[in-house]
Amino acid sequence: MTAFDELMVYQRETEALSQIAGRLGWDQETMMPRGAAPQRAEESGALEAVIHARRTAPQVGDLLAAAEAPDQAGAAQLRLIKRSFERTQRVPADLATTLARLTSRAQGNWAEARENNDFAAFAPVLQEVVRLKREEGAALADGGDTYDALMDDYEPGATGAQLQAMFDEMRPGLVALRERALNHPERAAVSGSYDPQQQMKLARELAKLFGYDMARGRLDKAVHPFSSGSGDDVRITTRTSKTDPFNCIYSTIHEVGHACYEQRIDRDYVLTPVGQGVSMGVHESQSRIYENQLGRSRAFCGWLFEQMRDRFGDMGVADADEFYATVNRLHRGFIRTEADEVQYNLHIMLRFDLERALISGDLAVADLEAAWNDRFAADFGYAVTRASDGCLQDVHWSVGLFGYFPTYSLGNVYAGCLHEALRQAVPDLDAQLATGDLAEATAWLGENVQQHGGLYEPRELITRACGAEPTAGPLMAYIEEKFGALYPA
Amino acid sequence: MTAFDELMVYQRETEALSQIAGRLGWDQETMMPRGAAPQRAEESGALEAVIHARRTAPQVGDLLAAAEAPDQAGAAQLRLIKRSFERTQRVPADLATTLARLTSRAQGNWAEARENNDFAAFAPVLQEVVRLKREEGAALADGGDTYDALMDDYEPGATGAQLQAMFDEMRPGLVALRERALNHPERAAVSGSYDPQQQMKLARELAKLFGYDMARGRLDKAVHPFSSGSGDDVRITTRTSKTDPFNCIYSTIHEVGHACYEQRIDRDYVLTPVGQGVSMGVHESQSRIYENQLGRSRAFCGWLFEQMRDRFGDMGVADADEFYATVNRLHRGFIRTEADEVQYNLHIMLRFDLERALISGDLAVADLEAAWNDRFAADFGYAVTRASDGCLQDVHWSVGLFGYFPTYSLGNVYAGCLHEALRQAVPDLDAQLATGDLAEATAWLGENVQQHGGLYEPRELITRACGAEPTAGPLMAYIEEKFGALYPA
Repeated sequence: MTAFDELMVYQRETEALSQIAGRLGWDQETMMPRGAAPQRAEESGALEAVIHARRTAPQVGDLLAAAEAPDQAGAAQLRLIKRSFERTQRVPADLATTLARLTSRAQGNWAEARENNDFAAFAPVLQEVVRLKREEGAALADGGDTYDALMDDYEPGATGAQLQAMFDEMRPGLVALRERALNHPERAAVSGSYDPQQQMKLARELAKLFGYDMARGRLDKAVHPFSSGSGDDVRITTRTSKTDPFNCIYSTIHEVGHACYEQRIDRDYVLTPVGQGVSMGVHESQSRIYENQLGRSRAFCGWLFEQMRDRFGDMGVADADEFYATVNRLHRGFIRTEADEVQYNLHIMLRFDLERALISGDLAVADLEAAWNDRFAADFGYAVTRASDGCLQDVHWSVGLFGYFPTYSLGNVYAGCLHEALRQAVPDLDAQLATGDLAEATAWLGENVQQHGGLYEPRELITRACGAEPTAGPLMAYIEEKFGALYPA
Repeated sequence: MTAFDELMVYQRETEALSQIAGRLGWDQETMMPRGAAPQRAEESGALEAVIHARRTAPQVGDLLAAAEAPDQAGAAQLRLIKRSFERTQRVPADLATTLARLTSRAQGNWAEARENNDFAAFAPVLQEVVRLKREEGAALADGGDTYDALMDDYEPGATGAQLQAMFDEMRPGLVALRERALNHPERAAVSGSYDPQQQMKLARELAKLFGYDMARGRLDKAVHPFSSGSGDDVRITTRTSKTDPFNCIYSTIHEVGHACYEQRIDRDYVLTPVGQGVSMGVHESQSRIYENQLGRSRAFCGWLFEQMRDRFGDMGVADADEFYATVNRLHRGFIRTEADEVQYNLHIMLRFDLERALISGDLAVADLEAAWNDRFAADFGYAVTRASDGCLQDVHWSVGLFGYFPTYSLGNVYAGCLHEALRQAVPDLDAQLATGDLAEATAWLGENVQQHGGLYEPRELITRACGAEPTAGPLMAYIEEKFGALYPA
């Protein structure tokens, strides 16, 4: 057996264990009895320790040094294994352990602080998380930029400077559009009551329509929608609200985008490092294009309107145009996860700037709440009145996720590029969407993005799919056109 | 840290991983998408390899040699770790691997042969399984009895000779009782149709009534009912039949018996070797006493009759007495898992004698079908006409479970002893059961059996609970009295 083959056998076992860890995570959010939480923490910890030991084992380094890639996919495997191995080698074991313990505790502190709207109670813990993440980032950066090094875990190759330039280009247009839209009279949500069972039935049908393979997955309810797993066991969750059916519907379509990416990766890559989505940004591009550019398009909304009217009766909207406007309505709100396509990116930019400043040391944790509220007022035009609506709304920082937020907007930017290329490849896309036919659109994404898994680096993948380097241009043009029409000047 | 403490930390991690393996098994039978099966096999295989490597690691031997037990529970821990470690050391790694591969394949061959009623197609594979199990047993026995050595995996300390004597004592009475009962006109099953959702609702209520803690478990449907897990995450499954509500009800109560054993083990033992049921026989004693001595008693049936009549309406039985007789009816059948309290033990004795003869070499695999059918006719009084009703009905032998069957009847015997002791401890038990009150009965079992986990050896545990060495006497007296009254001479 060659060193390469030996490394791949070893790696395959590690990936198999890692899939099990993912399945446990799914179980915890969907099926686990509540009283099992402490025992589960210990069980998961034991499995994580095994996986960590395997990923950092000296034999991985030895095999990497000796392995020669037999082909392009093999080269990608080695690149990914090497990146992961070198990262674990750079972070001192003590620091990794301290961080894991701290963030596990900090998540609880954050939840309590959010409950009480009390940022001051959380600040000391967050300060410690920031201090250790700076330390970790510096160790990873090896002389380079600390924030970029942290971001590399989620979006390999992306830099803060690059994103900064992209976001600077987007922000004025988004702020102006948001301002114009919110000067219009606020459009009401749908009226009526929506049976949760009927919503789940529709969600299952939509999942299949968008190409999700139910024989290799399942849809359940959870507090927060998510997708989990790779290959032949990719599960998704959604949630239902009796008054807002779009929560269930668009959460489902969003997670189906993530899940189809994992389900459609080339079968040769399953249970290998190349056998999963290449970055958070590309992953989000799939969930977003399914949810927004396809699912919230005028054409598809026409079809969905008929479906929903048949199932749920009167929704308080007169026709498909009004339905489309309601699905895409902008309204004042503080919460990122509930934001529309325009305001969502403003949420991300706010977080991106603040977390970069926290990591660089330009912003002290003690000043974070004030900085958040000032920036929010400037970008959104209304004031945050409680921390749970402001800097305590997201779990990310408490668990040490710095450099993760920008991948959401990068995903939107990639989705914009892919959408433009898709429209060129499928000129009658709208006619298809108008009949609820997603087959060609999702097949194009499968062919050009999803099947490749981690074969190419993120930007390279998008560039190959679109025939041009990704820029914010297509996304901004799409947003300006769509929301410019919905909220004319 | 002492060697003992170090060993326990190590062991705790192993037990945690082992609990995860159990959870995967549960997932596979209840939630897993069908298309995920091959990938899951690989994932589970990776986890099993990790657990096996940990259990057989030389450091376990080193720590065992150095460890000193700090107390009685510690001594039990060392005893169990030592037994498990020594057994893995005795079986050559090659043999263990070959057996694992063979039995994985043989299970498929068995399922196919059963489907086709074709024992001859399965015989060559079974012959190879028997050959390897004899080899494994001989390695484990280290000069002692091969069958006893195999049985030790399921019922430590029990011997074939001891069980033979016990079964010889039981068999004539059971055969006679069976004969007398089947000379009565056959009692009909209940009539009517039973809504599966209502059955599951009742099953959940019964589970709680029998002391199952739903906050640390859950009840789902599966093809074969089972209980899985220890400590704070013990899940059970049942099944429903629209015409036979007792399938769901008594499967649930049976699995609740298993599950309560695992849920009620002293919290100090969770995720340690002592923190699980001590043997298959004792485990079965809990499921059986819940299901039969309590759940199928005249007193409880009176209460259950009212419950079911209120929920399901007319069942075709006139009153509680007739209901009780129907629940406990004997009828001609070939399948062990569907057998009543009388015939069930005859099923076990048949298998016990045949598998001992297979392992000793007194019976050739080629002669198994004829031997089965002869013995069946003798003990049951009617003839097997197809192999799926005969020697192909159980999965056990195909997966290498030799020495497992007798633990089912041993469980019945233990249940008989515990039931006698329970009735002495709780003189008004019937009055309680008649109101659906299981609290005192299950608390007594929790106190005297379940809390101890693996602290005592199986026979010692039952002896301490009952104040006397276990014998078949109490079970036989109970059966003779109950079924003697239902089927008078």
